[in-house]
Amino acid sequence: MKIKPMGDRILIKPKDKETKTAGGIYLPDEAASEVFVEGEVVEISDMEKCPVKKGDKVLYEGSAGTEIIINKEAHKLVQLRDIIAKIV
Amino acid sequence: MKIKPMGDRILIKPKDKETKTAGGIYLPDEAASEVFVEGEVVEISDMEKCPVKKGDKVLYEGSAGTEIIINKEAHKLVQLRDIIAKIV
Amino acid sequence: MKIKPMGDRILIKPKDKETKTAGGIYLPDEAASEVFVEGEVVEISDMEKCPVKKGDKVLYEGSAGTEIIINKEAHKLVQLRDIIAKIV
Amino acid sequence: MKIKPMGDRILIKPKDKETKTAGGIYLPDEAASEVFVEGEVVEISDMEKCPVKKGDKVLYEGSAGTEIIINKEAHKLVQLRDIIAKIV
Amino acid sequence: MKIKPMGDRILIKPKDKETKTAGGIYLPDEAASEVFVEGEVVEISDMEKCPVKKGDKVLYEGSAGTEIIINKEAHKLVQLRDIIAKIV
Amino acid sequence: MKIKPMGDRILIKPKDKETKTAGGIYLPDEAASEVFVEGEVVEISDMEKCPVKKGDKVLYEGSAGTEIIINKEAHKLVQLRDIIAKIV
Amino acid sequence: MKIKPMGDRILIKPKDKETKTAGGIYLPDEAASEVFVEGEVVEISDMEKCPVKKGDKVLYEGSAGTEIIINKEAHKLVQLRDIIAKIV
Repeated sequence: MKIKPMGDRILIKPKDKETKTAGGIYLPDEAASEVFVEGEVVEISDMEKCPVKKGDKVLYEGSAGTEIIINKEAHKLVQLRDIIAKIV
Repeated sequence: MKIKPMGDRILIKPKDKETKTAGGIYLPDEAASEVFVEGEVVEISDMEKCPVKKGDKVLYEGSAGTEIIINKEAHKLVQLRDIIAKIV
Repeated sequence: MKIKPMGDRILIKPKDKETKTAGGIYLPDEAASEVFVEGEVVEISDMEKCPVKKGDKVLYEGSAGTEIIINKEAHKLVQLRDIIAKIV
Repeated sequence: MKIKPMGDRILIKPKDKETKTAGGIYLPDEAASEVFVEGEVVEISDMEKCPVKKGDKVLYEGSAGTEIIINKEAHKLVQLRDIIAKIV
Repeated sequence: MKIKPMGDRILIKPKDKETKTAGGIYLPDEAASEVFVEGEVVEISDMEKCPVKKGDKVLYEGSAGTEIIINKEAHKLVQLRDIIAKIV
Repeated sequence: MKIKPMGDRILIKPKDKETKTAGGIYLPDEAASEVFVEGEVVEISDMEKCPVKKGDKVLYEGSAGTEIIINKEAHKLVQLRDIIAKIV
Repeated sequence: MKIKPMGDRILIKPKDKETKTAGGIYLPDEAASEVFVEGEVVEISDMEKCPVKKGDKVLYEGSAGTEIIINKEAHKLVQLRDIIAKIV
């Protein structure tokens, strides 16, 4: 059994908080109203021409989407427009 | 006699609350403003290319849609955009 | 003389309140902000591909539309988007 | 000299108030926030496929449109979307 | 030197207030929130299929548009949607 | 080095305030909430079919756009929709 | 590893503040609510016909976008509509 996102939603597994600055890639502005989070794409919907695929590392708005827990692990269902960048 | 949803609405029978975490699939964040619920698709409308079909297990926004009672059992008429994922 | 709805409006004759739960079909949630009502389609507009026809039994949002009295009988002019389901 | 409505506007001559219930056709709900009025289409704009024509009897939202007095007689310029039905 | 309106704007010279009811054509409802004014089209923009031309007598929403004074005479730049009728 | 506007923006050099009524062309209504200003188009973007060109004299909403100083001279980046007329 | 913007976002490296008026190009109005900043395009998304390319010098709304730190250097992910001009 697994979750298949619908519409323009993407299922993401957030990266552990401790490793958020690993590789020197990013460090969110704590004071800003918008904080973004790194995560890995776990599942995409059936949308046409989805610009991300399973396994992609992405940054997304931390306040966006809805939290979902699968096998005791936190996940997020995030709309595509709230994914601001891929880490490649 | 049965209910045939119109427009982009889907008729859903919510899963019993007691079994909501069965299978370890999900556990809504109680503190969050958006809580989603698992249910089974009972009837779809005549919309073109409906991405769900009868019998599909889905997650939908708990606060969305309108409640309807059929033969003493609670159902929900939910718009497609409020169905966030299928459980497959 | 009769009423011909315009645009996306449908003329509906609400079912008598006493019989609202007849057949065990539905029972609106009194506490909810949205209450829907059963009625019969009396007249449709000239819209293309109207998904309801005269004689259809429908459920519509009770607070939607405008009331109109024809030959001392209450009717409602309801927009198509406020008809949530057919009873078939 | 005459008035030619522009855009999606229709020029309507409201029916005299005294005769509003003649023929048993309608009786607006006085308590409702939306009250509609019977009138006769006097002039239409150059819009394509206008669904009403001169001489049609129509019901329109009483609070919609702008009042205009022509030769001492009250008229209304009403947008097409505020005409809810024809009386045929 | 002259003013050439841009976009969907029309340059209008309002009729003198004293002559507003000449010909018995109209008399705005003073109490209404929307008051319209008679004027003459002085210049149109380059929009395609403009439904008014220079010299047309029009009625427009009095509160709409921006006032402009040309050679000491008051004019108005009004968007097409705020012209409610031609006087023909 | 020069500024090339992007999107639907136009770079404008406002006319000196002292000469604003020269030629008798316009005189903004000081009391009005919208005041417009005369200026000269200095640079346009790559938009298709731009209705103004370098050197055009235009009137634009004074409160619109963002101010930019180039070689100690004030300029404005104004969106096309806020240019209400050309002076020709 | 690098950041690849998604949607209509552009990755920009803001110019050092000390050199902001170098070349006499611009000087933001400190008192204005909108302040824009000069920066260099570091990475674009896969959008079709992107009007900027890597290395372009641009002006963008200072309050727009989300800050991101890459290898200890501040960057900004800015939506295309918030880039008001190129410096060419």
